[in-house]
Amino acid sequence: MKTSLDPNTWAVPSPVWVVGTYDKDNKPNVMTAAWGGICNSRPPSIYVSHREATYSHGNIMDRKAYTVSIPGDEYIKEADYIGIASGKDTNKLEDTGLTAVKSDLVDAPYVEEFPLILECRVVKVDKLGLHTMFVGEIVGIKADSKALTDGRPDLQKIKPILFSSGDRGYHSVGSRLADAFTQRNPLK
Amino acid sequence: MKTSLDPNTWAVPSPVWVVGTYDKDNKPNVMTAAWGGICNSRPPSIYVSHREATYSHGNIMDRKAYTVSIPGDEYIKEADYIGIASGKDTNKLEDTGLTAVKSDLVDAPYVEEFPLILECRVVKVDKLGLHTMFVGEIVGIKADSKALTDGRPDLQKIKPILFSSGDRGYHSVGSRLADAFTQRNPLK
Repeated sequence: MKTSLDPNTWAVPSPVWVVGTYDKDNKPNVMTAAWGGICNSRPPSIYVSHREATYSHGNIMDRKAYTVSIPGDEYIKEADYIGIASGKDTNKLEDTGLTAVKSDLVDAPYVEEFPLILECRVVKVDKLGLHTMFVGEIVGIKADSKALTDGRPDLQKIKPILFSSGDRGYHSVGSRLADAFTQRNPLK
Repeated sequence: MKTSLDPNTWAVPSPVWVVGTYDKDNKPNVMTAAWGGICNSRPPSIYVSHREATYSHGNIMDRKAYTVSIPGDEYIKEADYIGIASGKDTNKLEDTGLTAVKSDLVDAPYVEEFPLILECRVVKVDKLGLHTMFVGEIVGIKADSKALTDGRPDLQKIKPILFSSGDRGYHSVGSRLADAFTQRNPLK
């Protein structure tokens, strides 16, 4: 027997991604997004959603590009601050001591200290309501070599942060449970 | 100094969500999706992406509804099987011993054994490439009482599975690290 709850954004887990953009004066800005994910395999694409009131929203509309820098969980305070402060009021890179690097592939900066970066060209903009969804084709990936196993990103080495809207908390990743795509036979 | 990698779906983390639909004969079907996430806060909305070749794709196009049932990590084998087999060939609920329950809010079934359910009405369909993105407004949530703290879903009680495309693995959640929205001051 299940309890019925009113509609809310209570799916789990959500990522903690730091979205990098340039403003009209070429000042780099960063914004933490928990509304993001992979949405297409070919071409490989992700999305992030921002409220129209945010500085990042305007930057992405102007430049049609963004990066996603994925912090390891040692950067939880930086990620939380970046999600609260606005680039309209302050320089969040200076405030956190993080380093913006210009992508060589898209018109946006990424965070040098974070282990995995996705460089995206905006291919679709959808105003869904409070949030606008920006679908970005991944045109390049940058990674720290210590985040890779056999040349591929390894979640256990990246240790990304998880967000849960229902409990308004950040959570860590645990252990590797199993290889995917192995249970080829019915269980019953 | 970072290594450049070719474009791929190597963001982390991805969810492991089981999407419930009805086919044209009212047979319930389930399909595991790792391409999914929250995309809008008002109205609260999620998306899942499916390849056009999948049985679920046709079901959602016909019924304009789906549910997302979020398994705890004790159901990792069931979730993996449901992501491999096709409802065109078999009844995946019978094959896993899981129970389909008709939603009272949308024209789709959910999985009774899983702790958190999102009931969605399709509001947007976008063919992005190999995958089609189905944006769904969350019109209701069903949860086991043991998955809730103060009436809200608690990630530590749900223990959802994480998927990582880069290492093709499933991972568990770890511990709760911090409350979100607390770091209101610059760190430097």
